Amino acid sequence: MRELELGLSELEDMARGCAILGSGGGGDVEIPLMQAESAIDRHGPVDVLSLGALDPDELVMPVAGWGAPTVGIEKFGSGDEGGLLRDAVERRLGGRVGALMAGEIGGGNGLLPVIWAGAMGLPVVDADGMGRAFPEGPQCAMHIAGRSAAPAFFADEHGNVVTIEPVDGDWYERLARTLAVVFGGAVAGAEYVMDASAALASTVHGSVTRAISLGAAVREGGVEGLLDTGAIALVKGKVVDLERRTTGGFAVGHVVLDGTGEDRGRRVRVEVQNENLLAMEGDEPLAMVPDLITLVDEVTGSAVPTERVRFGQRLHAIGLPCDPVFRTEPGLEVAGPAHFGYPVGYRPVEQIHGA
Amino acid sequence: MRELELGLSELEDMARGCAILGSGGGGDVEIPLMQAESAIDRHGPVDVLSLGALDPDELVMPVAGWGAPTVGIEKFGSGDEGGLLRDAVERRLGGRVGALMAGEIGGGNGLLPVIWAGAMGLPVVDADGMGRAFPEGPQCAMHIAGRSAAPAFFADEHGNVVTIEPVDGDWYERLARTLAVVFGGAVAGAEYVMDASAALASTVHGSVTRAISLGAAVREGGVEGLLDTGAIALVKGKVVDLERRTTGGFAVGHVVLDGTGEDRGRRVRVEVQNENLLAMEGDEPLAMVPDLITLVDEVTGSAVPTERVRFGQRLHAIGLPCDPVFRTEPGLEVAGPAHFGYPVGYRPVEQIHGA
Repeated sequence: MRELELGLSELEDMARGCAILGSGGGGDVEIPLMQAESAIDRHGPVDVLSLGALDPDELVMPVAGWGAPTVGIEKFGSGDEGGLLRDAVERRLGGRVGALMAGEIGGGNGLLPVIWAGAMGLPVVDADGMGRAFPEGPQCAMHIAGRSAAPAFFADEHGNVVTIEPVDGDWYERLARTLAVVFGGAVAGAEYVMDASAALASTVHGSVTRAISLGAAVREGGVEGLLDTGAIALVKGKVVDLERRTTGGFAVGHVVLDGTGEDRGRRVRVEVQNENLLAMEGDEPLAMVPDLITLVDEVTGSAVPTERVRFGQRLHAIGLPCDPVFRTEPGLEVAGPAHFGYPVGYRPVEQIHGA
Repeated sequence: MRELELGLSELEDMARGCAILGSGGGGDVEIPLMQAESAIDRHGPVDVLSLGALDPDELVMPVAGWGAPTVGIEKFGSGDEGGLLRDAVERRLGGRVGALMAGEIGGGNGLLPVIWAGAMGLPVVDADGMGRAFPEGPQCAMHIAGRSAAPAFFADEHGNVVTIEPVDGDWYERLARTLAVVFGGAVAGAEYVMDASAALASTVHGSVTRAISLGAAVREGGVEGLLDTGAIALVKGKVVDLERRTTGGFAVGHVVLDGTGEDRGRRVRVEVQNENLLAMEGDEPLAMVPDLITLVDEVTGSAVPTERVRFGQRLHAIGLPCDPVFRTEPGLEVAGPAHFGYPVGYRPVEQIHGA
């Protein structure tokens, strides 16, 4: 059952929505959007299927770019990585890849399967692993469901292919991050490859359609349109302090916003590791992982990713509830504030703001 | 056709010989010797076969530890790496591994196949890839014969397995070295896996028996015994300067010897990158890669590897001719002085010394 045919106009809304869901990370959408447009020009619209429409034995191949978004913005793929990854997956696992899925719907990574689908002759499923972007691979619904990322596959723009079979999640993260660094700061990967019946039970559903509808809301109504979808306003302000280092395959730092307009006198600090992880006003948390914190342009409502935040920019910080799977105990364990070393107890963003 | 049955006494000579052939590198032999002794205690003597004795279609699996010998001296394997590598090789290549081979006969790496052979139920072939130890993977007869290292397989003591399919030798070296670093400075690998007929045409033959006979000569005659085998005396002296850094997966530095006895007044500097690469007396080269330069104890004649050289030690520097394959144009290209950035033209060690 085809859920939708993803053509150029849906694609533009999807890119806008993926940027919102990136929570600052997942990679800039600008170049991936151009690549996806060019792919749709060449191969036609992309079929987006619900997971239930696949043969239960077909493999679903989650794909994502690894590395710091500050690097991804300047270094992009050859376009052949998807085929190299599929060959490696099918050779190693013995099945047939029936569909692509975004490992994370957030940021440019959400568009990666759309870029590859046409040339590979594959549909994209309306699901992803995170419902947003997170800095670490195991911060996904497949991991929370007890699935292993291994074997995981990586391919770079030169044609290098690496298959890793790590013994646990820590080694998985360490090896993948190392590969991102050795491949110049960014590499494409396929991990948590599973059959469609397993994917049905252990992914975030409806991610592509959600990105498209969020993007449409922003296109039509700017920041107001976004807030109408259930997003929560955290603060409106100007960037007065900004630190951002690219280290160990991550972009790490913080952004400080001084309130403007009705928020004059407020000061909010956002902690960043690829994604925006925690927004604090003095000692009070305004929003925290696993919920989404996205900085959007005060005029257009378009998301501003980590690597494009600039001193003096006027932004809205908004919060969005994460998928419920991340609010379970195992979900908070891999993606809650304590995992990132923040000494705050998790409170859902909509509870903090009495929404 | 079994060439020899490698029991405990042959093993001891072999270890002594591997240390000489290490040219300072290949890893210390002390711990590998104990591991090999324990393996022979448990599983009995190891069959050493000439390559011609294998079924031409059987796979020969060259194995080696990667990393800085300064790390290898303190970090050693679980013993299961060989089995993990064989599983990965057979799954990926579809054949059956019929024998192990040392990727490099020099240093502890020469003993690695002996450590694993018994538990794996495999023989070891009387051959290796280098006839010595070299710092970089592609510095081997298989590479010179135009064979590819890929796919190459790595396993660590935790059970992590990584398969790399690099596009060229530079990427092969970069990825393998990176894996050595991420796995704590050392990792076991299998690369240039090939069938026996290919191995017959593209390896250095007789390496195990050569190591054993070199080791026996040293055991029986010390330095003199070694010189009787055709080794060339470069200088006899005391270590007066020593620099050694562990960087990027290599041990890099130099050793300066001030002549003693009949060599009083001479000063020789040896450049090191895991292995001893170049011996200079003022502006005059005494020996250089791809020929072997080994520092041996002035009393026992036992080789002193890079990581065990100490200030004040009294040593002989000796030179040994390399296998002829490294004196061809492609051999010098990958392993000659220019490859390491030394501005000296290659001259065979026996020519320099009019032997």
